[in-house]
Amino acid sequence: MNGAQSLIRTLVDSGVDVCFGNPGTSEMHFVAALDTVPEMRGVLGLAEGVVTGAADGYARIAGKPAATLLHLGPGLGNGLANLHNARRAHTPIVNVVGDHATYHKRYDAPLESDIEAVAGSLGGWLRRSDSSADVGADAAAAVAAAQDAPGRIATLILPADVSWSDGGRACAPVPSRAPRTVADAGVKQVAEVLRTGEPVALLLGGAACQEAGLRAASRIAAATGAKPFVETFPARLERGAGLPAIDRLGYLAEQVAYQLDGTRHLVVAGTKPPVSFFAYPGKASDLVPEGAQVHTLADVADDVVAALEHLADLVAPSTEPVLAQAHRPELPSGELTPQNWVEVIGALLPEGAIISDEAVTSGLLLPGATAGAPRHDVLTLTGGAIGQGIPAATGAAIAAPDRPVINLESDGSALYTISALWTQARENLDVTTVILNNRAYAILRMELQRVGAEGSGPKANSLLDLSTPDMDFVRIAEGLGVPATRARSAEELAEQFSRALAEPGPHLIDAVVPPIL
Amino acid sequence: MNGAQSLIRTLVDSGVDVCFGNPGTSEMHFVAALDTVPEMRGVLGLAEGVVTGAADGYARIAGKPAATLLHLGPGLGNGLANLHNARRAHTPIVNVVGDHATYHKRYDAPLESDIEAVAGSLGGWLRRSDSSADVGADAAAAVAAAQDAPGRIATLILPADVSWSDGGRACAPVPSRAPRTVADAGVKQVAEVLRTGEPVALLLGGAACQEAGLRAASRIAAATGAKPFVETFPARLERGAGLPAIDRLGYLAEQVAYQLDGTRHLVVAGTKPPVSFFAYPGKASDLVPEGAQVHTLADVADDVVAALEHLADLVAPSTEPVLAQAHRPELPSGELTPQNWVEVIGALLPEGAIISDEAVTSGLLLPGATAGAPRHDVLTLTGGAIGQGIPAATGAAIAAPDRPVINLESDGSALYTISALWTQARENLDVTTVILNNRAYAILRMELQRVGAEGSGPKANSLLDLSTPDMDFVRIAEGLGVPATRARSAEELAEQFSRALAEPGPHLIDAVVPPIL
Repeated sequence: MNGAQSLIRTLVDSGVDVCFGNPGTSEMHFVAALDTVPEMRGVLGLAEGVVTGAADGYARIAGKPAATLLHLGPGLGNGLANLHNARRAHTPIVNVVGDHATYHKRYDAPLESDIEAVAGSLGGWLRRSDSSADVGADAAAAVAAAQDAPGRIATLILPADVSWSDGGRACAPVPSRAPRTVADAGVKQVAEVLRTGEPVALLLGGAACQEAGLRAASRIAAATGAKPFVETFPARLERGAGLPAIDRLGYLAEQVAYQLDGTRHLVVAGTKPPVSFFAYPGKASDLVPEGAQVHTLADVADDVVAALEHLADLVAPSTEPVLAQAHRPELPSGELTPQNWVEVIGALLPEGAIISDEAVTSGLLLPGATAGAPRHDVLTLTGGAIGQGIPAATGAAIAAPDRPVINLESDGSALYTISALWTQARENLDVTTVILNNRAYAILRMELQRVGAEGSGPKANSLLDLSTPDMDFVRIAEGLGVPATRARSAEELAEQFSRALAEPGPHLIDAVVPPIL
Repeated sequence: MNGAQSLIRTLVDSGVDVCFGNPGTSEMHFVAALDTVPEMRGVLGLAEGVVTGAADGYARIAGKPAATLLHLGPGLGNGLANLHNARRAHTPIVNVVGDHATYHKRYDAPLESDIEAVAGSLGGWLRRSDSSADVGADAAAAVAAAQDAPGRIATLILPADVSWSDGGRACAPVPSRAPRTVADAGVKQVAEVLRTGEPVALLLGGAACQEAGLRAASRIAAATGAKPFVETFPARLERGAGLPAIDRLGYLAEQVAYQLDGTRHLVVAGTKPPVSFFAYPGKASDLVPEGAQVHTLADVADDVVAALEHLADLVAPSTEPVLAQAHRPELPSGELTPQNWVEVIGALLPEGAIISDEAVTSGLLLPGATAGAPRHDVLTLTGGAIGQGIPAATGAAIAAPDRPVINLESDGSALYTISALWTQARENLDVTTVILNNRAYAILRMELQRVGAEGSGPKANSLLDLSTPDMDFVRIAEGLGVPATRARSAEELAEQFSRALAEPGPHLIDAVVPPIL
């Protein structure tokens, strides 16, 4: 077998059986090798931001990495923003970046590029395969590295001749570094803090945002009076009726100050103490309330769920978690508003849905409207690099073909990676995209004020305006092979959303909403 | 004035008065400052690949840099592929990359990223502004660095607090490094080579691809029998009736071998000796014919035009250049083919057009059909990172508002940066985009065979296929605010192309062509 065949065989043997790709000439032997390993599924994206965002969404739901196939430094560059989001989510991803043949590099051909520098910016695992005989072992190491707790980006650079030359050997899976167990003493220290009776906030992140962690946190809160919160942008948050309803920390520093007001002890579990998303003149970057003491129950690489369950057994041995009751908003009526569109979603959200949430400002009221909806997962914009929502929904739908995927997507963010809709059509994925079309970078209008940028005039405002010309997402989606409709009223949105969910395959709704701010 | 104001004022004073941008919160003071410097034009792109590709196209035509405004590492990453193309074109560009406030970086907020690593991969000029008092001088240095011969990418990292703090000072322009003059002795050595009577090929690149260089090369060729060629992917090539018609070296090694067959001396002027774009098993990477001797008349940083003119005066003192006669193909008829669509373009190309050429395989026959058309410029895909054509056309149209811009764009490449159409609509640019829609990554089908990837089966072929589902570029363009039509026959293409040229503002034609291969 050649290097490419040994690579794909090893990936599959290591549990990686989906590859999102946007190949070029240097990757042609990898592409050809796909037909020799039937278990590997190749999924084409029309731009690399689609590929990497899909790999992120896939792994958040599948709980294991996908591979990507990228074309030299420019291909990796195009995919970098969604890899940044994946890095912040601690998502395991195995990038395969094709490069020129080893002997070709010294000619500085047009696509010669510094792949190591670009990949190195991600701070994950990085290796270049030097020979066909090594590729299998390198691939197994990459899969293991990607899954080392808490998960990271592993990038394997694959020269074309290493791919096409014979001598490849498939390699057995390599174990990953498991989450570290938190020592008893550490858990007991936090238990002591909770027993002081002083105001405690409990901040959850990572794996703690799924059922077991949320239940343990809810027990702790119920027994001790600690106020639990979920980190601002969790990679994957389980929510809905039958699960504890725990609020996320707000995006704005002012919200966080309100939420954490009076806190004397901040217990951090599976995340870091909160910081401001951006800096603002004269405002603090560190959002830990003044005078509050931070206690780390579990680091991001620790087994946070076990630590929370241990803690709950210490401080709340006989306390049950408080679970959200089933409750949906009434179906609203009238022209779409920032309030009523989320009620439509809350009223109609199907059981087991996955929400890929990039609604940005338009989605500020969403959590309240869906807290009592049937159980669902929410994937959030972990790294702040917009253009994640449509690709992540695409990858999530590949990971969970039996679950409905709902992508709530702001107009400004949608255009970065819009061609992911084509992949949804090609793969016939059950994704319903709702574009929250407010014809502006509304968040930047807000931020322009918040950073105190006085004197902003027509030129500044023009750069935040998306209404000249208006974008017609119905036509764009149809052009990419996805059936689409436009909703201007709550009734239209409800009717179209229900129909999209009932029909197989992807759909898009261009929901015309006013800016919330 | 604050740092941002001093930056924009300095840019304008240094001759940089267009800024293509896709800002975020950390760039809000830069955005606000646009209104304080009326000479600076801000142009919004909906994704960073649009921004950087437009800056490339702008500078290739304007002959001076534009600025870009990008949002931290992810924004720079999204723009990296077209910066790669610009780097290969030696295009001067001044990137302004916003970053978190200096004091905010240590908090590792979600968008914290290694901007230096990503920018460093471009190998250009890179600086971080440390204080508002420095920004003006840094900006002047950046503009100068970008324009150091032969041109490069200059990246200035602008922390948010450096942008918003007072103490900014506008700075006077700084001189750039001019092209080096080639020494007499070097020119005379090449003259001796030309006088041997042995077979010589003369390869032109960089500034030699414009009128003065082409005329000198044509004189040399006419007087000495040397065979002149233009590099495979020139940044900007002047062509058409009244100019010397000099063929480009082919993309395929086999073509180059044919073109250079029998060459004993290869004289290189403003470029490097030819290498294969990719490596292929068992084929040479170095395309200099065996036994041929390479003579460098002028390096890329040298004054290649002066060197060519000097050489022409030595070996062809009384020889006139051979100029292409005005000649157009007849307007063809019938279903579109790889041959007749280029005849339509050749028959109707308007005087002074700028062609942004990303037609890839569909455009193989274009040069022959346009050699005798009215004088025009061609911008080619210098770095091989697809997604350049629509943004480059956008930037070129901003640089030359009185010239018609024609973007010949393959379907596979178009989807990377399709939202540039929206910027064309917003700025009401006279760009006519012709999508060569062959429903495939046709070049990769060819390359799959050329790299000898045996055993390619249905999965491999599926990854190169764009017909499932078909993309409807008429709807996509209309959705982005650009009027569009579909052409299936040569008559339809001719009628629609004429009409698009006659009407102001952008237009798109979805031309349904069969794959050439």
